[in-house]
Amino acid sequence: MRTNYFDWAATTPISDKALQTYIETAKNYSANPSALHAEGKKARQFLEEKRVKIAKLLNVQSKQLIFTGGATESNAIVLNSLLLRPKAGAVIFTSLEHDSILQYSSFLTLKGFKVELLKGNKGFVTAQSLENLLTDDTQLVSIMLVSNVLGTIQNIKELVEVVRSYEKRGGRKIHFHCDATQALGKIDFDLGELGFDSASFSAHKINGPRGVGLLYLKSEKIEVLSRGGSQEMGLRGGTENVAAIAAMSCAIEECLTDLETKRLKAIKLRVLFEKKISNCKAVKLLSPSYNESCVANILTIATAAPSEVFTRILYDKGFCVSSGSACSNNAPNKKNNLLLSNGFTDKEAASALRISFGHATTEEQITILAETICLEAEKFNAMIRSR
Amino acid sequence: MRTNYFDWAATTPISDKALQTYIETAKNYSANPSALHAEGKKARQFLEEKRVKIAKLLNVQSKQLIFTGGATESNAIVLNSLLLRPKAGAVIFTSLEHDSILQYSSFLTLKGFKVELLKGNKGFVTAQSLENLLTDDTQLVSIMLVSNVLGTIQNIKELVEVVRSYEKRGGRKIHFHCDATQALGKIDFDLGELGFDSASFSAHKINGPRGVGLLYLKSEKIEVLSRGGSQEMGLRGGTENVAAIAAMSCAIEECLTDLETKRLKAIKLRVLFEKKISNCKAVKLLSPSYNESCVANILTIATAAPSEVFTRILYDKGFCVSSGSACSNNAPNKKNNLLLSNGFTDKEAASALRISFGHATTEEQITILAETICLEAEKFNAMIRSR
Repeated sequence: MRTNYFDWAATTPISDKALQTYIETAKNYSANPSALHAEGKKARQFLEEKRVKIAKLLNVQSKQLIFTGGATESNAIVLNSLLLRPKAGAVIFTSLEHDSILQYSSFLTLKGFKVELLKGNKGFVTAQSLENLLTDDTQLVSIMLVSNVLGTIQNIKELVEVVRSYEKRGGRKIHFHCDATQALGKIDFDLGELGFDSASFSAHKINGPRGVGLLYLKSEKIEVLSRGGSQEMGLRGGTENVAAIAAMSCAIEECLTDLETKRLKAIKLRVLFEKKISNCKAVKLLSPSYNESCVANILTIATAAPSEVFTRILYDKGFCVSSGSACSNNAPNKKNNLLLSNGFTDKEAASALRISFGHATTEEQITILAETICLEAEKFNAMIRSR
Repeated sequence: MRTNYFDWAATTPISDKALQTYIETAKNYSANPSALHAEGKKARQFLEEKRVKIAKLLNVQSKQLIFTGGATESNAIVLNSLLLRPKAGAVIFTSLEHDSILQYSSFLTLKGFKVELLKGNKGFVTAQSLENLLTDDTQLVSIMLVSNVLGTIQNIKELVEVVRSYEKRGGRKIHFHCDATQALGKIDFDLGELGFDSASFSAHKINGPRGVGLLYLKSEKIEVLSRGGSQEMGLRGGTENVAAIAAMSCAIEECLTDLETKRLKAIKLRVLFEKKISNCKAVKLLSPSYNESCVANILTIATAAPSEVFTRILYDKGFCVSSGSACSNNAPNKKNNLLLSNGFTDKEAASALRISFGHATTEEQITILAETICLEAEKFNAMIRSR
């Protein structure tokens, strides 16, 4: 484990047990699960056992789980299905969504859809603002469960209820999709109970391997664009990545084991961090001060220095933090629109710094990080003043 | 290595070296390559080194290579790009294409495209028949380099030339896509020289890991549906699967090392197999008798028994062969349309059996397989006669 890695929301190191599972599965179940011969059937059976195991861990039915290449693809499967609707309608995305959702805005608009952006306030959207955007044309609503930038948890049950009530009045189904990537292993939730129609997960955010994820699909039949060889009930083509799927099932089990203990430890670290920066005027917490409507392990702060400058200062001191989501770093017109559309000022958005930690992070690491941030933020301010 | 595994065209076991590379990379380069901190940059640099290495191995430029989740996804990226064209036009698929291409027929038709099926003759399409299908509306042509069922190699240079000449006359670009998945490590080809605009590859067909592949994109800019976090030059979203990419680069290197020696060994095994079945009237070779226009390691035969029955007989004897491509086994209306549209009879198509082997296959294994097939095919015929 790297000592000063505070970018767990971007990706996590694969656990020893998940890696071992990958290795053993790759060696022992190397046939194509779609092949009808003995080796293929052995791989198929093993794959289906993993589906049942994950379904049990998530308290859903195994037939509701589709193995994908990751949350980006899970999101794409759901959003692409809109293109196969007989008629283009309206969709609602929150301004908190990941780029893999938001990047569809321009494409869907091009294809005749009306895309409504549900703005948040400091990381939260309200039931009322969602209700205001619902129309007779709404086909899909996509709301992230845990913000990958602010760590805020949406009251998803209430938001689902708004859509379900509207549905009842209109007698027309609206698909409720939830990107739950940052929620797994961080908060205790019952996938089946939350009431949405689909949800996305990535293994690499929970110490599993890259290139594998889940699409939870409750009951609604969706049409998909790329069927490939009709694998995964025709919903996701491509030879099943059995080794990675087995490793993911191991990672899911690991992340859900002693969840409450891990959650309490994370809260302790978060509170410690907040306390350490509370006396430092040069640092401002943009995420809410820790409470039950946030995950403890993701927070965003602001200083007087531009994000890139301050993250670089911290890299030089050996700390890995993020100036936004890793994915958004590739965007051609990089600008923290997410923060701007969540009620933060231009200055706050321009200097935002995301800190995220994991189960291996220690109090000592948090202390050093907080102290370094305070010291460097104050040094930066002094430098500005002296000019 | 499993003794009686003759389904290498469906998937191959990961090599020790590729697996070791996966393990070491997962341990040493665990940060997100899109992150701007030191660990992220280290992962980015390593990833780009792998891209350069693969580009060198394939004799193309590194900026022409996009890392994807496999050939199914590479194909989907190219085909989905059609949806972003200002106007629906016509596309040409050969009847030899993999399901990940052919399944787009209905969807593209739905979206206003005209989909022309270029029929083959015993596994080959002709330049003339391609030329006959080209029209002023043609936007894309997709032709597989090596058939995953018959092992036939298309004269791709000649086919590309037909399209390029037509382009010149019309003054309008036509995208030429090539699914080259079964060609890599089997035939010696120069990716840059073949003249197509894009090509797909999967690592798991060449003893690399699952869930990773390549899209070669020569120079034409294509619009993509799912950008995710704008990774891979905005062409393929999702956190880069660095460990699998490194393992793939290892597998590509391995499969290209001593290619001619391996090719000659495969030819020896193919010729041995053909000789063994040549005296057995109950078995018919559907693939061409081995010649330079085929790969040696994939062949399809027919008997009097339905495919499923005969493959089951062979499974009971411990042999893993295929009744078609593994992917097509999942199709809801399973029927060997590929063979029917390549000039084979209903009876031949209904009893087809694909045999594919790899570098670890021995003469002894081939001998036992051929002898068992002949014996069982004759036994089946005797049983039919006695009824």
